Amino acid sequence: MREVTLAARPRGAPQDGDFELREAGGAEPGDGELLVRNVFVSVDPYMRGRMTGVRTYVPPYEVGDVVTGGAVGRVARSRDARFAEGDWVLTMLGWREGGVVRADRARRLDPDAAPPSTALGVLGMPGLTAWVGLLDIGRIEAGETIYVSGAAGAVGSAAAQIARLKGLRVIGSAGSSDKVEWLRSLGIEAFDYRETEAKQALADGIDVYFDNVGGAQLEAALAAIRPYGRVIACGAISRYNDERPEPGPRNLFLMVTKRLRLQGFIVSDHDDRYPDFVAEVAPWVRDGSLRYRETIVDGIENVPAAFVGLFHGDNVGKMLVRVGID
Amino acid sequence: MREVTLAARPRGAPQDGDFELREAGGAEPGDGELLVRNVFVSVDPYMRGRMTGVRTYVPPYEVGDVVTGGAVGRVARSRDARFAEGDWVLTMLGWREGGVVRADRARRLDPDAAPPSTALGVLGMPGLTAWVGLLDIGRIEAGETIYVSGAAGAVGSAAAQIARLKGLRVIGSAGSSDKVEWLRSLGIEAFDYRETEAKQALADGIDVYFDNVGGAQLEAALAAIRPYGRVIACGAISRYNDERPEPGPRNLFLMVTKRLRLQGFIVSDHDDRYPDFVAEVAPWVRDGSLRYRETIVDGIENVPAAFVGLFHGDNVGKMLVRVGID
Repeated sequence: MREVTLAARPRGAPQDGDFELREAGGAEPGDGELLVRNVFVSVDPYMRGRMTGVRTYVPPYEVGDVVTGGAVGRVARSRDARFAEGDWVLTMLGWREGGVVRADRARRLDPDAAPPSTALGVLGMPGLTAWVGLLDIGRIEAGETIYVSGAAGAVGSAAAQIARLKGLRVIGSAGSSDKVEWLRSLGIEAFDYRETEAKQALADGIDVYFDNVGGAQLEAALAAIRPYGRVIACGAISRYNDERPEPGPRNLFLMVTKRLRLQGFIVSDHDDRYPDFVAEVAPWVRDGSLRYRETIVDGIENVPAAFVGLFHGDNVGKMLVRVGID
Repeated sequence: MREVTLAARPRGAPQDGDFELREAGGAEPGDGELLVRNVFVSVDPYMRGRMTGVRTYVPPYEVGDVVTGGAVGRVARSRDARFAEGDWVLTMLGWREGGVVRADRARRLDPDAAPPSTALGVLGMPGLTAWVGLLDIGRIEAGETIYVSGAAGAVGSAAAQIARLKGLRVIGSAGSSDKVEWLRSLGIEAFDYRETEAKQALADGIDVYFDNVGGAQLEAALAAIRPYGRVIACGAISRYNDERPEPGPRNLFLMVTKRLRLQGFIVSDHDDRYPDFVAEVAPWVRDGSLRYRETIVDGIENVPAAFVGLFHGDNVGKMLVRVGID
């Protein structure tokens, strides 16, 4: 089984050469462990931060180590009574074709309830991020107007639709006409940020801003936001590859005059909200009122390219790499 | 009686020539009105924002109008049964030697409870700003470390001391050795920001930042703040005179990784907290556990110079202009 390691810390935008594909030793599961063959591995923007070598909320990846993260696969051999061969599981095995995990670190998935890949997307970390951000951080209310940047991404497309289902007017930005079209079909007032200035798109004013992007979108949102507005600071994909920190928004002082609340959060602090999240969101996914898309790249050898592609907006919805067959 | 009007909208730092001293007509109080002779008039940094002509949370001052704001004086003639000649009152008459006000817009002051000038400072708007900011916005807790910038100002010196009385470790910045010495005598770990980089002074880390200053101090505070920290965005005196907006902090993305909450507020939204504020803070002022200073300039003709001086740090504690005798 093969795996992808961090070969060098990226400088600026990550490149294929920052990663290395290698053969892994064939580990055998011990007591209480599982051998899992991955089917889908996840590439996520937050991983860029872990590649820099700076400790933030999670330890950095070390050069030479496998890039760990979410993965969905099937149990190939079980040494734990709770799992049987063939079970679908979510693990943090990351960028490898498979490997050994402790059974208590694996979450069993019901493939009849939802496609297992959704455990990496709309019903997994990105979906929980959207839901927690809106409800617990932004405290959205029906009738409000929200702006979601990066609205065609894994988190953004969930956030935009959950907000709509909660009775908000939703404006969303994306970076291609295809993405914009998809978002419009979902009832989102979408615009292409490469063609339309956010300032124009937000001219009616907003109450809440769900920030996946940072930079110019944040500045435009601060300008457009109404008094007592909230900024849900989820990410800043436009900035993750900056080699040196760029200046922040020129209008941050509006925070005082408009009495704004800007709040950052990390989804892993909110794992206890997972059951409530699934209880509310899974039915929406099942009945089609919340739609999701996946951009699926094939082959473990293409994991680095898929990851790099996140920063070029190559994905619509959740970016996944299929590394095995189900 | 004389009064000071806005003669021109300041460009950049305000100058004496932006204001005009003129004779006012001798108005007579009607039914339910008072004629008040001011003793102290207040100059406050927030007034700079009202001079720009942009509507923020209060309407802008118009060119040719008297600059209104807090003032303390004595009733010279009363046409309202609740007030007697000689009573001390707080009004919003602003930069004039006196004038007519509706009685229900005047607050009577008890000169035996506290010196009337404190109604413009430690027991007035600046003190309430400090207290509301710390308790309701920052939700400070004993044992935390707070950094207060502009700690020798009217708001800052109240905030620093209230935080200390609430059991916090308090670091404060100021712009002269005299101010630093005063703050140290109050139990504040004070530093002169012109001589010591905030980065150094905050090297141990902080939990809360009470921002009166903006700019470089905000950037340093974001770097030093611990996870789950809060920024109480009260003001940004370093930026009020910018002719064009300057970039914000280069490290604002730390908001996400550190899960920070940055929240702006305007004290006038919190007037309902005034009784609780006075109940807690007035005893501290009386028994000397909370100290205050006033920088008093004499003569209505010197109001513009006193106001301009705020932006040069001419004040220790509350800046007042004495325009009459008590």
